[in-house]
Amino acid sequence: MAADQVDLNADLGEGFGVWTLGDDPAMLSVVTSANIACGFHAGDPAGLRRVCAAAVAAGVRIGAQVSYPDRVGFGRRFVDVGHDDLVADVVYQIGALDGIARSVGGRVEYVKPHGALYNTIVTHEGQAQAVVDAVAALDRTLPLVTLPGSVAAATARDAGVRVIAEGFADRGYRADGSLVPRSERGAVLGDTAEIAERVVEMVTTGRVSAVDGTVVTVDIDSVCLHGDTPGAVDHARAVASALRDAGVELRSFLA
Amino acid sequence: MAADQVDLNADLGEGFGVWTLGDDPAMLSVVTSANIACGFHAGDPAGLRRVCAAAVAAGVRIGAQVSYPDRVGFGRRFVDVGHDDLVADVVYQIGALDGIARSVGGRVEYVKPHGALYNTIVTHEGQAQAVVDAVAALDRTLPLVTLPGSVAAATARDAGVRVIAEGFADRGYRADGSLVPRSERGAVLGDTAEIAERVVEMVTTGRVSAVDGTVVTVDIDSVCLHGDTPGAVDHARAVASALRDAGVELRSFLA
Amino acid sequence: MAADQVDLNADLGEGFGVWTLGDDPAMLSVVTSANIACGFHAGDPAGLRRVCAAAVAAGVRIGAQVSYPDRVGFGRRFVDVGHDDLVADVVYQIGALDGIARSVGGRVEYVKPHGALYNTIVTHEGQAQAVVDAVAALDRTLPLVTLPGSVAAATARDAGVRVIAEGFADRGYRADGSLVPRSERGAVLGDTAEIAERVVEMVTTGRVSAVDGTVVTVDIDSVCLHGDTPGAVDHARAVASALRDAGVELRSFLA
Amino acid sequence: MAADQVDLNADLGEGFGVWTLGDDPAMLSVVTSANIACGFHAGDPAGLRRVCAAAVAAGVRIGAQVSYPDRVGFGRRFVDVGHDDLVADVVYQIGALDGIARSVGGRVEYVKPHGALYNTIVTHEGQAQAVVDAVAALDRTLPLVTLPGSVAAATARDAGVRVIAEGFADRGYRADGSLVPRSERGAVLGDTAEIAERVVEMVTTGRVSAVDGTVVTVDIDSVCLHGDTPGAVDHARAVASALRDAGVELRSFLA
Repeated sequence: MAADQVDLNADLGEGFGVWTLGDDPAMLSVVTSANIACGFHAGDPAGLRRVCAAAVAAGVRIGAQVSYPDRVGFGRRFVDVGHDDLVADVVYQIGALDGIARSVGGRVEYVKPHGALYNTIVTHEGQAQAVVDAVAALDRTLPLVTLPGSVAAATARDAGVRVIAEGFADRGYRADGSLVPRSERGAVLGDTAEIAERVVEMVTTGRVSAVDGTVVTVDIDSVCLHGDTPGAVDHARAVASALRDAGVELRSFLA
Repeated sequence: MAADQVDLNADLGEGFGVWTLGDDPAMLSVVTSANIACGFHAGDPAGLRRVCAAAVAAGVRIGAQVSYPDRVGFGRRFVDVGHDDLVADVVYQIGALDGIARSVGGRVEYVKPHGALYNTIVTHEGQAQAVVDAVAALDRTLPLVTLPGSVAAATARDAGVRVIAEGFADRGYRADGSLVPRSERGAVLGDTAEIAERVVEMVTTGRVSAVDGTVVTVDIDSVCLHGDTPGAVDHARAVASALRDAGVELRSFLA
Repeated sequence: MAADQVDLNADLGEGFGVWTLGDDPAMLSVVTSANIACGFHAGDPAGLRRVCAAAVAAGVRIGAQVSYPDRVGFGRRFVDVGHDDLVADVVYQIGALDGIARSVGGRVEYVKPHGALYNTIVTHEGQAQAVVDAVAALDRTLPLVTLPGSVAAATARDAGVRVIAEGFADRGYRADGSLVPRSERGAVLGDTAEIAERVVEMVTTGRVSAVDGTVVTVDIDSVCLHGDTPGAVDHARAVASALRDAGVELRSFLA
Repeated sequence: MAADQVDLNADLGEGFGVWTLGDDPAMLSVVTSANIACGFHAGDPAGLRRVCAAAVAAGVRIGAQVSYPDRVGFGRRFVDVGHDDLVADVVYQIGALDGIARSVGGRVEYVKPHGALYNTIVTHEGQAQAVVDAVAALDRTLPLVTLPGSVAAATARDAGVRVIAEGFADRGYRADGSLVPRSERGAVLGDTAEIAERVVEMVTTGRVSAVDGTVVTVDIDSVCLHGDTPGAVDHARAVASALRDAGVELRSFLA
């Protein structure tokens, strides 16, 4: 489906204490939704409070970027967390970030799982159910950002939780609409112009070319921009600019 | 000041993962307010969710028992946390527990600092200010439970935050109304009958005998019962029973 | 293979800060080898130092009970740790416990993976290789305690690392010599007399009856006693006593 | 006292997981001693193993940079740790890093407390004693790097632990030989040439000018170079070069 508006999201608040990651102020000048870490894979309370305040000031929506409890692995490793523990982990994180956001005049308005949790619930029914149960238990009106066609998306819809389908600006797609694994060729795109062009195609035509040349249908509400890769800010600005040039309005899916 | 009603509070949810501490179900059958750990000194998300659900079921009010980030020291060691970090730490913890509580039908209705943080803000102006600033930034209607006469109490009042003054069932008092330090004789009382009798005196007459025999005025809204000492549950039940026998209604300070 | 001597091992040092687990002093009076936690799933430095000192005083050998970095899950959840991270995690833990042990006159003399890591390397080649690589990189003379027939055992032998095969006093076996999963009937035995009798059979005849009645050959160097289950200390004492009555000497595999 | 040789030390291994800090390879090409983090304020096992391997390859001595357990505060905040806990914390860290170092062909050859612990034991007798007791319990031959004239230095000498006195390349001194607190003017020097010149003066004449112009006697075995400040690597190279030009040999205090 072609769209004349789209949301741009990126991961923010992913430092910890003295350690920084990415350029949060620059990304806040581009995106319409900020997936802000909640302390489990990244983000100390004071740092999270600063980035929430900056998001509020920039008029960018705040989402809870929930993760496995794995700071040393940056949430990028599968952890076999059982249902009740995962429900509670997700609730705890959303609540914590919502407290932080409220203390600076904002609030958490959506949920986006991070890293290995994001990838796992594309296919893992038990953990997808746990994430959805957490959202449903805390606040069923919070949308869940996930991959279109994922188990997480289906589970959320069954539970009456709104699904925000996202596309990836700099990731290669396979013919079935899934992402090319990072271990394979074509997983990550590096050319700024190509990235911008693909996003425009994805948003305005509802289609994208897979690595094997197949044209894949992608119906997305939001485009994920990576904030911590080389050239991240340049890519983000190029994508935003190309979308505007193509007549697409950049706008939160909540607006 | 003598009172015909009083709140009973105790610390709950202070296990972590496989580790347990105290007898939460028993204490929930006695107290009117549960100071529930928030994960910084104790409390994993799933355990906190279970104890919040039990508190909701028991009709016991939930307070956020905020702490320094010091699990290995159980929050009992002073940490020289700066203002902005401490504000954010407190906000994060209240938010996290509030999320957990809301997910089981409750909510955080007051704040009680734990351990070394509790003791520190009796006198430490900077940290007292940070705790109060956190409450004020998140939700100025949340009362703060603290020692009467403390810097924290004064700071909270200045900020328009309600103060709940608490007395201690099993702690010795000094002539100035402060607690006998744990390193000194008379710091902790162990005799159940004596504890119950003192609490009744404290609540019904507004006075308590200090270790040196001086009679000290104590004007309290809540009595703190310890849940993890030997005989804790027996002490708690004896206190509750003695208060009822003396015609004192046990009732949350929020009711 | 029948034996006239055997080692008894149990997990110790599995508290954390104020939290305790099991009865370490009682178990130290029974076992010949203490698998002591290293801080990743349990064990704070001061607590580990106390239990190491007690092990040294009791003449019990100290092994490093290495784990995934997962305190909240007590190391019982699979974590998809990559090779280099797992090698370093294992080396770090052995080194840390060895420092602690040396500071009280002992030293780490063997390695036994804990919980989910133990179970994973029964079959997971990559993680088995990482554990073995860690031992080989640090001190190839440290034996590795594992399940007979496991991938870990084969990998260790290939690397020239000594394997200590262990049997389980209170676990059911399947016909192929593997343990009955905890989710199935017959996984854990609770009757003291039955447990003691089975261990004697296992050690003196080299055979044990599987849940389906098949007689399984088990050639073991050590018997694992659980320290944190109900009746743990009674079971341990009964096993030790029954072995002695059957003429089996209780003796470390290092002696 | 003037010297014709001196050691240069710097803090390394202070990243954590995905987060990096400073330029370890560049600093390893300059220093003779690497104070490597042990995981309590910074340093994940795999990262520590990489920097230890690099130190071994560069022929740089490895010291254990022990800290309070405070990753979120980077070990820069005083924690009121009791004696037995601090002894065990220090032993655990030295042991862990020694394991890591041994696994790549090196070993821990000295101890340097980090951040707030370093500063605290300049004056705090109890914690100074705990640090020294830890070294003495583990390996009395490990030297302790500390500020000349500190309580830590005196305590170490009393216990028969070798003291390595260090001077600071980029810090202002007061007339009593102590450092200008970071909150005051003149605390940190930023001019590369001035820093180099002062170090040469300090090493070759045994004197340095205090902020008030007083000439202070400094008898040092090692010069501390900061690795994570702006221009850190340039300062380090300038200091090393200026010392060589002045005929001072750069050499570990262990050589």
